Amino acid sequence: MMYALDLFGVAVFAISGAMAARQLQMDPFGALILAGVTAIGGGTLRDLLLDITPFWIADPNYLYVIAATAIFTVIWPLKRGWPYRILNVADAFGLALFTVMGMSRALSAEVSMTVAIVMGVMTGVAGGMIRDVLSGQVPLILRREVYATASLVGALVLAALLHGNMDIKMASAIAMLTTLLIRLTAIRWKLALPTLNQHR
Amino acid sequence: MMYALDLFGVAVFAISGAMAARQLQMDPFGALILAGVTAIGGGTLRDLLLDITPFWIADPNYLYVIAATAIFTVIWPLKRGWPYRILNVADAFGLALFTVMGMSRALSAEVSMTVAIVMGVMTGVAGGMIRDVLSGQVPLILRREVYATASLVGALVLAALLHGNMDIKMASAIAMLTTLLIRLTAIRWKLALPTLNQHR
Amino acid sequence: MMYALDLFGVAVFAISGAMAARQLQMDPFGALILAGVTAIGGGTLRDLLLDITPFWIADPNYLYVIAATAIFTVIWPLKRGWPYRILNVADAFGLALFTVMGMSRALSAEVSMTVAIVMGVMTGVAGGMIRDVLSGQVPLILRREVYATASLVGALVLAALLHGNMDIKMASAIAMLTTLLIRLTAIRWKLALPTLNQHR
Repeated sequence: MMYALDLFGVAVFAISGAMAARQLQMDPFGALILAGVTAIGGGTLRDLLLDITPFWIADPNYLYVIAATAIFTVIWPLKRGWPYRILNVADAFGLALFTVMGMSRALSAEVSMTVAIVMGVMTGVAGGMIRDVLSGQVPLILRREVYATASLVGALVLAALLHGNMDIKMASAIAMLTTLLIRLTAIRWKLALPTLNQHR
Repeated sequence: MMYALDLFGVAVFAISGAMAARQLQMDPFGALILAGVTAIGGGTLRDLLLDITPFWIADPNYLYVIAATAIFTVIWPLKRGWPYRILNVADAFGLALFTVMGMSRALSAEVSMTVAIVMGVMTGVAGGMIRDVLSGQVPLILRREVYATASLVGALVLAALLHGNMDIKMASAIAMLTTLLIRLTAIRWKLALPTLNQHR
Repeated sequence: MMYALDLFGVAVFAISGAMAARQLQMDPFGALILAGVTAIGGGTLRDLLLDITPFWIADPNYLYVIAATAIFTVIWPLKRGWPYRILNVADAFGLALFTVMGMSRALSAEVSMTVAIVMGVMTGVAGGMIRDVLSGQVPLILRREVYATASLVGALVLAALLHGNMDIKMASAIAMLTTLLIRLTAIRWKLALPTLNQHR
């Protein structure tokens, strides 16, 4: 069940990478690379820092999902544009899922709760940051949207619930819902945190 | 023999990094850093993911080759420009070599063939991608050229030949030639894969 | 003592990351991420390459210092701009400290002196490079300032003194002073290495 969700999260992030490649008129193989780093960049960085084998090395299914998704995205006829609304919801779901799963994986590696929160947020957002850098853009999530913030709040909720000895499945579900709701609310009403004033 | 070729590949990629630094009017030490990340970035990332000691930590000769190459490129009088044709051929050779050697090294670490293909392509192209990002550009190889594609096809050929139980030396030579020929053909006739249509 | 200095260095680099975030009008959480990668990016990369646990995983105090510094920088009223002169001196101190500590840590992991020099410079400059890339800029230190050069000269001095069997504390102090003086001199008189001529 979690495994299926995880593959779904990878597929969603792979689509967002391949979409960015289309907008930049990359060639199909560039799209494949961008889909890959977006989908597994965050989790790979987390696993390197935790000194465990990156998840996709032990299980190539992740790579197959990425390749299939990228090809699908590339050949899809975009006559009338993509259903952005659906993509945004799916991406919000991926963010929520990756944050919680990243944190669980960090806690299994027996790091402190503070470090686990960092790892959860990193799993959620680092792939998208690498995608933006490779696309020649300042990462959007650093700039405008309530994106990393949604991930962080979810991670903090999970930490609080686990600290209160809640069952991990229940706590994970609540944390995921928190991130999902914050992100969807932000998308729906175009919310953003106030940006920092530029100094002189 | 392979060792000499490997050092040659490192030198070729270091030149391409130092050349990019010249075009951006970096200072000499910036050129050294850019030469270094271009030459060993891909292999370093591969070794980190495979959890083996990065190759240049165990053998500093790679660092000496990079330093010597960067200095040489920096002091070379560029009155009439560089012989781009020679550089392009050398770079194509480096790409072919790094792809095959990256894949061999991954297979020695006993990963699956799918993962080894990813590692081979990564060894071939990641250094150049980091170079482009540090130069403030969208990585060229994601955009226009039959570059990563040449690496991927070579890797797939090697996988197929090894699967057919061909001797690894012979298979490696054929795979390298494949990558080299595709890349040189693309350079000669300015080939490119069709880019993805921008949506909207 | 060294530990307090190290936390101070982390705080200084975190400020420089959060300042960059202000200039780019990032949101507060973007500032936190940028402060974090600037402060611990170089040391994290070094620890990954040396295959030791990243320093901030074993000791979350670094994360607390970063969070506190980022929040402080974000809420600080910038009516009349920051005291750049003080920031520049603090940053030069951080560079000197990180170079020497990075090199010590590499030598403890029993790498060769050449590799230790690379690790020292990397610890000093990589965080700032990642900050610049995430900010959408060609890393400044590759371009204009006697920055990486100051780090490299300090590392070479330390290597020479250790080779001459000087006590490591005394050698570290001299190396730090060397980097600090070169960098402060460059700032004071706006020195720069000659840049490389652009070829045709």
